[in-house]
Amino acid sequence: MNQNIYNFSAGPSVLPKEATKQAAEAILNFANTGVGILEMSHRTPPIENMVAQTDSLLRELLQIPDSYEILFLGGGASLQFSMVPLNLCSSDDTVDYTDTGVWAAKAIKEAKQLAHVNVVSSSKESIYSYIPKDFNQSAKATYLHVTSNNTIYGTQWKTFPKANTYLVSDMSSDILSRKINVSDFGLIYAGAQKNMSCAGVTVVIVRKDILGKTNRIVPTMLQYQTHIEAKSMFNTPPVFPIYVMNRTLNWLQENGGVENIEKINIEKSNLLYEALDQSKLFMGTAAKEDRSTMNVPFVFNKENVSENQIQSLEKDFLNFTTEQGLVQLKGHRSVGGFRASIYNAMPIDGIKALVQALEDFEKKVI
Amino acid sequence: MNQNIYNFSAGPSVLPKEATKQAAEAILNFANTGVGILEMSHRTPPIENMVAQTDSLLRELLQIPDSYEILFLGGGASLQFSMVPLNLCSSDDTVDYTDTGVWAAKAIKEAKQLAHVNVVSSSKESIYSYIPKDFNQSAKATYLHVTSNNTIYGTQWKTFPKANTYLVSDMSSDILSRKINVSDFGLIYAGAQKNMSCAGVTVVIVRKDILGKTNRIVPTMLQYQTHIEAKSMFNTPPVFPIYVMNRTLNWLQENGGVENIEKINIEKSNLLYEALDQSKLFMGTAAKEDRSTMNVPFVFNKENVSENQIQSLEKDFLNFTTEQGLVQLKGHRSVGGFRASIYNAMPIDGIKALVQALEDFEKKVI
Repeated sequence: MNQNIYNFSAGPSVLPKEATKQAAEAILNFANTGVGILEMSHRTPPIENMVAQTDSLLRELLQIPDSYEILFLGGGASLQFSMVPLNLCSSDDTVDYTDTGVWAAKAIKEAKQLAHVNVVSSSKESIYSYIPKDFNQSAKATYLHVTSNNTIYGTQWKTFPKANTYLVSDMSSDILSRKINVSDFGLIYAGAQKNMSCAGVTVVIVRKDILGKTNRIVPTMLQYQTHIEAKSMFNTPPVFPIYVMNRTLNWLQENGGVENIEKINIEKSNLLYEALDQSKLFMGTAAKEDRSTMNVPFVFNKENVSENQIQSLEKDFLNFTTEQGLVQLKGHRSVGGFRASIYNAMPIDGIKALVQALEDFEKKVI
Repeated sequence: MNQNIYNFSAGPSVLPKEATKQAAEAILNFANTGVGILEMSHRTPPIENMVAQTDSLLRELLQIPDSYEILFLGGGASLQFSMVPLNLCSSDDTVDYTDTGVWAAKAIKEAKQLAHVNVVSSSKESIYSYIPKDFNQSAKATYLHVTSNNTIYGTQWKTFPKANTYLVSDMSSDILSRKINVSDFGLIYAGAQKNMSCAGVTVVIVRKDILGKTNRIVPTMLQYQTHIEAKSMFNTPPVFPIYVMNRTLNWLQENGGVENIEKINIEKSNLLYEALDQSKLFMGTAAKEDRSTMNVPFVFNKENVSENQIQSLEKDFLNFTTEQGLVQLKGHRSVGGFRASIYNAMPIDGIKALVQALEDFEKKVI
């Protein structure tokens, strides 16, 4: 295939070419052992070393203090929606949650089974198109939960709220895209399948001193302490997804780390938002001050396109872009239109090609 | 590397060469889409079709009736130790468990948090070297739990017990190695990283009518019903491990299915057990009538080897075999000595090479 393909999928999503190439090679022969990585016991030095190195890479890239543990778990971020309250609070404790999207709402739903949940803010009434800034925290909440980036709606906490307790954050769709101060958080979790790896592993970064404060009876596999003590090897971990993460983190480190990728992400997203703002045909859907650098939803501007044109125009635009190798631009059903997910591994050339396609399509239509 | 390597790892373990080759190729370009499988959304037709096809393949290979659902979950079989009682019984119900190894004991430990557990039999006193055949089931147990094959000790239920209720079985280390009658079981679960795939996905086969009989409050991700309704797509599933399974099942189907592999597994294991029985130097550790076709632990025969020789001889034997490309033969610490795991994907030539090595080493020593 000669055409460049740019993959705007919201997740699982584009990964660095070097990382996927190295992952494919490791399947045939890992670390020059003559055995493929899918077929090696997790109790062998090459795999143990690889997992330890992945921990070190992530620790270095996010400057994670020694007071935090890093865990590589199965089950997805959705399982963390329950593991967080199970491990951090008792059933009669109060926990604060911000409701900034469907995933935040799912976290709230699970927490409600397990504690008193105070939903301190919500933008649900406007299809989550902005991040509510003002809210009253509970006097004695165990933690305040925020979803740092809302994949579906393209909104992002630009500065995290000052909490009177520690923050817990689902960073599935923007971890490693920008500098964060890990010390502001008690716990960070993230499904890997956007900025870190393929699907199948979830990272948990947890400050050790917040654990051990509940006397719930929790299944062994759902206790963070189990996985801390076993260095994520209590049972067979998802070895290959961890290796893809290892290679993705290595790529990030070799390309200037988080500080540099943050600059590139700002440049990339600015390029796309400017094109949308200048367009008569397209427009972004998220509040400008909350615009995500990772997910850019956009729709036809109804001032310039009549309602009854929209359905066929949407089809035309998706065909038009797909022909040019710009794939997976269909928007989420709850927002409609289109969405360009432009994670770390999306090259700036992909953005330029998309901007060009927006302009070319506009000329055809208006 | 010219030398053939035979990988006797207990898990993750050897996979069919075709399956790993196809998996590596799919990382670079999946289903001729120009996008790699690690980077594709699980909500796209190529991935949805692949998961549905994996379900069909497994259904066909194990002749799973329509009254059963197949789930592909993250978290490992260890998470099933809790999900099974959470979904199948209430906290005041009684459940029966057989204690045939460390993994069975871990299942018992988790169940004890969640129900009244009656341990109906145990061979712990003899380092789990046999399967206890006689036991008294509880009058009203919800289910009887059996670990079909005990990876560490090399024992296997040759016929499953006749229960006065339905069976639940952890088949992690022998699923697809032999014909089973799925209808004898209410639920079967298996971590994939032995006979089915790489690490990262766990299969659950569950008869629908045993669900919905408890009123526990269970986290959404831990409810089988969640994953049944969403066809294992409630959240992002471990796509790549499912694809490796797809290719491994495809290989099995093309090679005569379970009926044929069972014959080969009997032939392979007989070859190895006969060599051990004829040896003066080596001996198997499991009771003959319970010998596993999947895992063959063996030690030096202390009648012919003095205690103080053993440590250095063990080292010598592992070096001797490793030099010949026979790798991962070190035994589990609780049994000592050696263990040859000879799953479906281990070719008979690997067994022949090991038998030859046993004989050659014996000639050197005795």
